[in-house]
Amino acid sequence: MNITHAYAAQDAKSKLAPFEYQPRELRDHDVQIEVLFCGVCHSDLHQARNEWKNTVFPVVPGHEIVGRVTAVGGHAKKYKVGDLVGVGCLVDSCRTCDSCKEDLEQFCENGFTGTYNGKDRVTGDITYGGYSTQVVVTEDFVLRIPENLDPAAAAPLLCAGITTFSPLNHWGVGPGKKVGIVGLGGLGHMGVKIAHAMGAHVVLFTTSPSKIEDGKRLGADEVVISKDPEQMAAQANSFDFILNTVAAQHDLNPFINLLRRDGTMTLVGVPEHDHPAPQVVNLVFKRRSVAGSLIGGIKETQEMLDFCGKHNITSDIEMIKIDEINEAYERMLKSDVKYRFVIDIDSLRS
Amino acid sequence: MNITHAYAAQDAKSKLAPFEYQPRELRDHDVQIEVLFCGVCHSDLHQARNEWKNTVFPVVPGHEIVGRVTAVGGHAKKYKVGDLVGVGCLVDSCRTCDSCKEDLEQFCENGFTGTYNGKDRVTGDITYGGYSTQVVVTEDFVLRIPENLDPAAAAPLLCAGITTFSPLNHWGVGPGKKVGIVGLGGLGHMGVKIAHAMGAHVVLFTTSPSKIEDGKRLGADEVVISKDPEQMAAQANSFDFILNTVAAQHDLNPFINLLRRDGTMTLVGVPEHDHPAPQVVNLVFKRRSVAGSLIGGIKETQEMLDFCGKHNITSDIEMIKIDEINEAYERMLKSDVKYRFVIDIDSLRS
Ligand SMILES: [Zn+2]
Ligand SMILES: [Zn+2]
Ligand SMILES: [Zn+2]
Ligand SMILES: [Zn+2]
Repeated sequence: MNITHAYAAQDAKSKLAPFEYQPRELRDHDVQIEVLFCGVCHSDLHQARNEWKNTVFPVVPGHEIVGRVTAVGGHAKKYKVGDLVGVGCLVDSCRTCDSCKEDLEQFCENGFTGTYNGKDRVTGDITYGGYSTQVVVTEDFVLRIPENLDPAAAAPLLCAGITTFSPLNHWGVGPGKKVGIVGLGGLGHMGVKIAHAMGAHVVLFTTSPSKIEDGKRLGADEVVISKDPEQMAAQANSFDFILNTVAAQHDLNPFINLLRRDGTMTLVGVPEHDHPAPQVVNLVFKRRSVAGSLIGGIKETQEMLDFCGKHNITSDIEMIKIDEINEAYERMLKSDVKYRFVIDIDSLRS
Repeated sequence: MNITHAYAAQDAKSKLAPFEYQPRELRDHDVQIEVLFCGVCHSDLHQARNEWKNTVFPVVPGHEIVGRVTAVGGHAKKYKVGDLVGVGCLVDSCRTCDSCKEDLEQFCENGFTGTYNGKDRVTGDITYGGYSTQVVVTEDFVLRIPENLDPAAAAPLLCAGITTFSPLNHWGVGPGKKVGIVGLGGLGHMGVKIAHAMGAHVVLFTTSPSKIEDGKRLGADEVVISKDPEQMAAQANSFDFILNTVAAQHDLNPFINLLRRDGTMTLVGVPEHDHPAPQVVNLVFKRRSVAGSLIGGIKETQEMLDFCGKHNITSDIEMIKIDEINEAYERMLKSDVKYRFVIDIDSLRS
């Protein structure tokens, strides 16, 4: 098999730079994928800089992968050469625990195998992600990308899309429901689009008045400036569900107060320091819940992709070449991206 | 109508002392009840001392009331003279809002009328509770007490019973479920009994090794000393539901870690100062929830009473005379009661 050209961080302090590796030999159920596009997720930056203290270097980030099948293993049946496919955050799991049996591999009780910085379940080798010219993934963890979607703009669906779709889906968002999306970044802008397509009344919460127009364009029925107590008060006790995509530490109580009885606010961002404590009285007096959600399982990821295909939903992206990745990380830290960077992996081939 | 003999606090600093008042004239749908027993709830103490800053004095506490019907209004159809009945925390609500229409009057969007320190919806008069020889309550907020239950020991079902039954019921506790009860006080000991009768595997969490034996007697399959990290670690990721009855400020994270995927911990105690912040990562990585719950609606309270009748469940009580109430409050503050004080209201008649 051809050598893989990639970009890797060699240690927590170094910038990402060219790196080459030999991909694994195709196993019976493997799919070899020529990577076309890879989205840039905040996790990539956290892992490259070892901010979660678990990075094995060198690390090749990237788990929003879209590409074409170039070869399949002897017993692989699900995909054929030429298919447009995707790979998200998971490339394997134990497949035997309760969570795996319920198609919730993201909660695999024996630990799922991450697309990068994971440990291959056969060889123990560290996995390399989508900042690569090719990846080899077992067919059960490969997704089908609807052909009507722009493949570059579809890449962020594999992480940002499923991370927002899964809780919206799990907590029953749909027609007749009033749904809040907190934060308009890579996750939030997908949340707005998906909740709107699900038929809900969507309210975007943002701290930036400059985002009002964009929020409405993306599908929000209303945009609320969350720093304005009057605007917030006008929304009290009215939400069935709030998806909070903000990873920065912030006070949850002003949002909890917006939930109606039996409403839930679900957090998908993990802050470096935990949010201040929720007021118990705000939970008790309306039987409200605060919950968490993590990406999604393979089955639900395919459902999300099919849903996005049907509703023609992709991410708003800024395309970059691989040698712009370090600059993109700096801009991402300043939230200076609308709304997701996607690497044109052809730039790794030339 | 006869004068009502009661005990009231005249201000936040005074002890409870004898007090008399004229009950309201029977309205068409009213039920007049001779009070036999009244349980002593922590809320009584908080209200008598104005710790929630909303007490109107004089206040006659008591919302765990069991008595006999002595008269009914002209159009009252549900009860007849001689019936054994109960009154809990609510004596009225708006009856028109969504929560009321869904039999969840405890969440009445226009505010339910509390059994004491509430405001009568007709006259605006302040309501007086069950530390009284009689109460007059509209029939829709009167409960039927199963005749097989000891009426004194049944009184605490009206608040402690429904406060624990409602969340156990709402979150689907039953056979095949593993359920934790945190704290063995007035609420916790009812939680253990009810969860056990619902057919769940019940684990009691307590900080007191002295409560192990009692916990098992009450129906716990296991008792875990929550201060012991080893015992706690052995229970990790195993609970479908945890009912946390502890109102004192404490760290929720050691309990959240015991929830399995999609598990919920529900708080029914409101601490004076909020608990430390839950770690978001503990919610996200197992899609766990932290929720609150408040007493229960009238329909569910009747279901709870019927359930307790069927399973012969009552509270473990210490009977007191009304002139022991101030001492009982002091003992309650020290958790020196197994597990609920109940006032023999005959002591108000002599
Ligand atoms: Zn990601
Ligand atoms: Zn598994
Ligand atoms: Zn009470
Ligand atoms: Zn109401």
